[in-house]
Amino acid sequence: MATMTWTRRHILSLEDFTTTEYEAVLQTAASFREVISRRTKKVPALQGQVVANMFFEPSTRTRSSFELAAKRLSADILNFSPGTSSLTKGETILDTAKTYLAMGANIMTIRHRQAGVPQAIADEMDRLKSGVSILNAGDGVHQHPSQALLDLFTLTNLLDKDNPRLELLSGKKMAIVGDILHSRVARSNIYSLTAAGAQVHLAAPPTLLPRLFLDLVSRDNLYLHWELQPALENADFVMTLRLQKERMSNNFIPSLREYHLHYGITRDRLKVCHPNVKVLHPGPVNRGVEITSDLMDDPNLSLIGDQVTSGVAVRMALLYLIGSSKD
Amino acid sequence: MATMTWTRRHILSLEDFTTTEYEAVLQTAASFREVISRRTKKVPALQGQVVANMFFEPSTRTRSSFELAAKRLSADILNFSPGTSSLTKGETILDTAKTYLAMGANIMTIRHRQAGVPQAIADEMDRLKSGVSILNAGDGVHQHPSQALLDLFTLTNLLDKDNPRLELLSGKKMAIVGDILHSRVARSNIYSLTAAGAQVHLAAPPTLLPRLFLDLVSRDNLYLHWELQPALENADFVMTLRLQKERMSNNFIPSLREYHLHYGITRDRLKVCHPNVKVLHPGPVNRGVEITSDLMDDPNLSLIGDQVTSGVAVRMALLYLIGSSKD
Amino acid sequence: MATMTWTRRHILSLEDFTTTEYEAVLQTAASFREVISRRTKKVPALQGQVVANMFFEPSTRTRSSFELAAKRLSADILNFSPGTSSLTKGETILDTAKTYLAMGANIMTIRHRQAGVPQAIADEMDRLKSGVSILNAGDGVHQHPSQALLDLFTLTNLLDKDNPRLELLSGKKMAIVGDILHSRVARSNIYSLTAAGAQVHLAAPPTLLPRLFLDLVSRDNLYLHWELQPALENADFVMTLRLQKERMSNNFIPSLREYHLHYGITRDRLKVCHPNVKVLHPGPVNRGVEITSDLMDDPNLSLIGDQVTSGVAVRMALLYLIGSSKD
Repeated sequence: MATMTWTRRHILSLEDFTTTEYEAVLQTAASFREVISRRTKKVPALQGQVVANMFFEPSTRTRSSFELAAKRLSADILNFSPGTSSLTKGETILDTAKTYLAMGANIMTIRHRQAGVPQAIADEMDRLKSGVSILNAGDGVHQHPSQALLDLFTLTNLLDKDNPRLELLSGKKMAIVGDILHSRVARSNIYSLTAAGAQVHLAAPPTLLPRLFLDLVSRDNLYLHWELQPALENADFVMTLRLQKERMSNNFIPSLREYHLHYGITRDRLKVCHPNVKVLHPGPVNRGVEITSDLMDDPNLSLIGDQVTSGVAVRMALLYLIGSSKD
Repeated sequence: MATMTWTRRHILSLEDFTTTEYEAVLQTAASFREVISRRTKKVPALQGQVVANMFFEPSTRTRSSFELAAKRLSADILNFSPGTSSLTKGETILDTAKTYLAMGANIMTIRHRQAGVPQAIADEMDRLKSGVSILNAGDGVHQHPSQALLDLFTLTNLLDKDNPRLELLSGKKMAIVGDILHSRVARSNIYSLTAAGAQVHLAAPPTLLPRLFLDLVSRDNLYLHWELQPALENADFVMTLRLQKERMSNNFIPSLREYHLHYGITRDRLKVCHPNVKVLHPGPVNRGVEITSDLMDDPNLSLIGDQVTSGVAVRMALLYLIGSSKD
Repeated sequence: MATMTWTRRHILSLEDFTTTEYEAVLQTAASFREVISRRTKKVPALQGQVVANMFFEPSTRTRSSFELAAKRLSADILNFSPGTSSLTKGETILDTAKTYLAMGANIMTIRHRQAGVPQAIADEMDRLKSGVSILNAGDGVHQHPSQALLDLFTLTNLLDKDNPRLELLSGKKMAIVGDILHSRVARSNIYSLTAAGAQVHLAAPPTLLPRLFLDLVSRDNLYLHWELQPALENADFVMTLRLQKERMSNNFIPSLREYHLHYGITRDRLKVCHPNVKVLHPGPVNRGVEITSDLMDDPNLSLIGDQVTSGVAVRMALLYLIGSSKD
C-alpha cells in the first residue's frame, strides 16, 4: 500500500486536487485492483468503521460500487434510502446527516440532485468537529469526483498496468462528446485530465456547450467544438456522455435520432482518431444514441466494462485513504 | 459435504436435470440443514465471492431466502432493486447484468416477469467467457427451479431425514392443484417429481389447465384432471398453487368463492387421500381460497413452514455447488 | 457485561417492566457504549443468529439504528421492506412473520402503524413454541419501548456516566410537551420515567391531551397541563414530541404557527426551568415548530444527538439481553 500521507478529509471536487493526491489514488487503486483479483478479496482496513451511503438521488450502479468497495475493506455499511426516510417527514438534509453522525457513521457518501449538498454537509461536519469524511458521489451538474478518478485509473492502468501515473496521459488527446453543460462527469474529468497534461476537446451542439462554459471551467489545454470531427481527429480516447432523455422535451436537442446523426459515436466516425483509440462512457448507456451497440460491445475499442471494474478499486482507494487519515 | 463433481454452471430449468444432479442437491442440502441447526451457522465456502440478487420482479420472500443462504456461505451480497435502478434510465437488462459482472459478481440470482431472461443473461455471460453463474429465481410462467428443488428436498427429507434421495418418491402419488397454466412452480415440479418416479396428477378448471398443456410439458406419469376428486384419491401429497387474484378479472375463474368451492383444499376433501397425506404450498397463501386456514396451520398436515426452512438449505446447496465448480 | 438473569422473551411495552429490568438495560447499554467507542466495535455475541427487521411502516432512522446494533453484535440481518413484499400479494402479517421464522429468524423487530401487531406476532410465536423474540419498534399510538429506554439511558448516563441507574432520576421534573394523545413515545416514556421516580408533567392543547388520558395511562407522579408554563417551571428536562403535520388538517391544532406560539420550545421559555435544563426530542424534528432551530443546535441545551447515539447502545443491549436468554 502507498505510504504517502493523505491529509484531505473530504473528497468533494477535483478542482483543487493536487498531483500528489492524484498519484496516491492511482497507486492505492492499483494495489486494490490486485487485492480483488485474489480469491479472498477482503482486507481489514476499515473494520469497525461505518460507511453510510446516502443516495438522495437513486442510483443502484454507483451505490453498489461503493457498497462493494466498503465491504471489501470490512466496513459496516448503512444504506439510506430516501423513499422510506424522515425526509418525507420534513426533516432537513443536514439533520439526516447529523442523525447518521450520531449513530456513529465515519464516512458518508452523498449523492444529491442539487449541487453543493455534499459541501454543505461537509461544512457542518467540520463545524461540529466530528471527524467525519464526506465523499461526493455526484451532486447535480457540479462534480462526480470518484467517476473521474476511476476514468483516470482506467486510462493510466491501460497504458501501464504496473505503474499507473499521471504523466502517461501527458499530450494525449481526449475527446469528450455530448451533454457537457449538464454533466458532472465532464466537469470532474476536465480537471483530472488537464491536470495530467492531456489535451481535452469538448464536442456538443451549442445548446449543450455554450461558449461561456469555457469561462466557468477555465483550464489550459481545453478546447471547444460545435462539430464532432475536429474533436475526434487523432484522438487517443473518446468519452461519450449519457444523454438524459428529458433534454429533448426541454428543446436542448431536436430528437434522439438527430442527436445520434450528428454526435453519436460510430465505428465509421472513429476512423479519423488515432488507430489505437478507445471509447469510454460513464453508463448507463442509451444504446444507439450516444454510441452504437456494436462499438459498445467491441472489447478492442470499448473500455466501458473496465471503467466499472476500476470503479470498485478506486472507491476502495478513496475510502481507504480518507478512512486511514482518521488514525 | 458431497464430493461428486458438479459441472453445470447455470441453474435455469429442471427440464434436463440429471438424476446425479438431483441427488447432489439433496445430499448437499442435507449437510447444510445440519449446519444451520448448529449455533454458529456459517461456513466460509463462498468467502470473497459476490452474489448479486437481481430481482426485477419484487419478492421479499425468495430474495430473503437467497440472501440468508449466501450470508451463511460467507459470500458478499449485492441487492439490485429495480425501483431505484438504471433500468428506469433506459439501460437494457443485459447491460445491467454486465455492469454487475464488471463489478465482480460471481453468481447472479435472477427473477424477471418475462420467461427466458435468466437464459438470455446466462448466454451473454458465457459468450463473454465470464465464468459467472446464473441461478433462475423465477422467470415468468417458465421455471422456478430452486422452488421445485426445495419441494423435492422437503418431501424426501420427510421420508428419510438421514438420507433424502429420489427413489423415496418412486410410485408416490402427488396431486398438484390450481393455476397450472400460469405456474412456473408447477412446471419445475413436474420435471423433478416425474424424474423421481412419482405419479403426478394435475387438477384445475379447464381454463387453467388446457389439454394442450400435456403437449407442452410431456412427461411420463403425468395425468390431467378437470375435477379435484380423482387427483386426490389415495394421494400421498397435495401441492396447492397460489391463485393470482388478477386471474378473476381475466375471466379464467368466475370468482374466488367459486374457485374455492370446486378446487379449494379442505380437511374434508383430504379424506379420500392416503391417511398420511401432507399438503404443500409455495406461498404466499391466500387463506380460504387455495386452502382453508385451519388446514394450513395444522402441523400434522401442512409442510408449508418446512418448505420455507428447506428453501434456505437448498439455496445454500445450489450456491455452493455452482460456486465451488468455479475453482 | 451485566450478569443478571434476563427472562423476558419479548419487549413489547414498558407497562410491566420491572426495576431490575430497567437496571439491566442501563448497565448493559453502558458496557456497549464503551464497546462502540473502541476502534473495533464488534462483539461476537449474536454470531449465527438472524435479526429480521420488519418495518411495515417505513423508517430509515430507527431501522438503521437496529441494523447497526445487530451488526455490532455480529448477527445476520434480514431487512423486510413492505413495498416489495408478499403483503401486496394478500398474505397476512402473521404469515409473513411465520415465513421469517421458518427461514431461521431468531429475533424480529416489528414496526407497524397499527397498535398491537407486535403483540399478536409474539403470541403466535409463543403458541408455536418457536423461541423467537419480538421487539416492538413502534406500534401505532401504543408503545415504542426502545425509544423510551434510550431516553432513559441518555438521561441517567448524563447524570452519572460511570453508573447510570434509575434512582438518578428520582424527584427530577420532566416536562413532556406536544402531541401526547398520538404519541407512542410519550406513552412509553411515562412508564419508564415514573418508574424511576421522576415527576412527569404533560403539556399540550386539550385536543392533544384530553383529560381522560390520565385514566388511560394512570401512574403516580403524572400531571396534566393545558398551558406550557406550569409544566416548564423548575423542570430538569423538557421532552418535545414530533407534531405530525396531518394533525392540522384533522383540526387538532389551528396551524403550525399557532402551535409554535403556544407550545413551541424557545430559549426564552426555558428561563423558568432549572438552570441546567436539557431538551430532548425523538426526531425527526420540524425545526421552528416543536422547537427553535438555535435551541436544537445548542450543545449545552440539546440532548438530541446524544439520544441517537444512545439508541445504538440501548438497542445492542436489548438484542443482547433477549438474544442471550435463548441459550
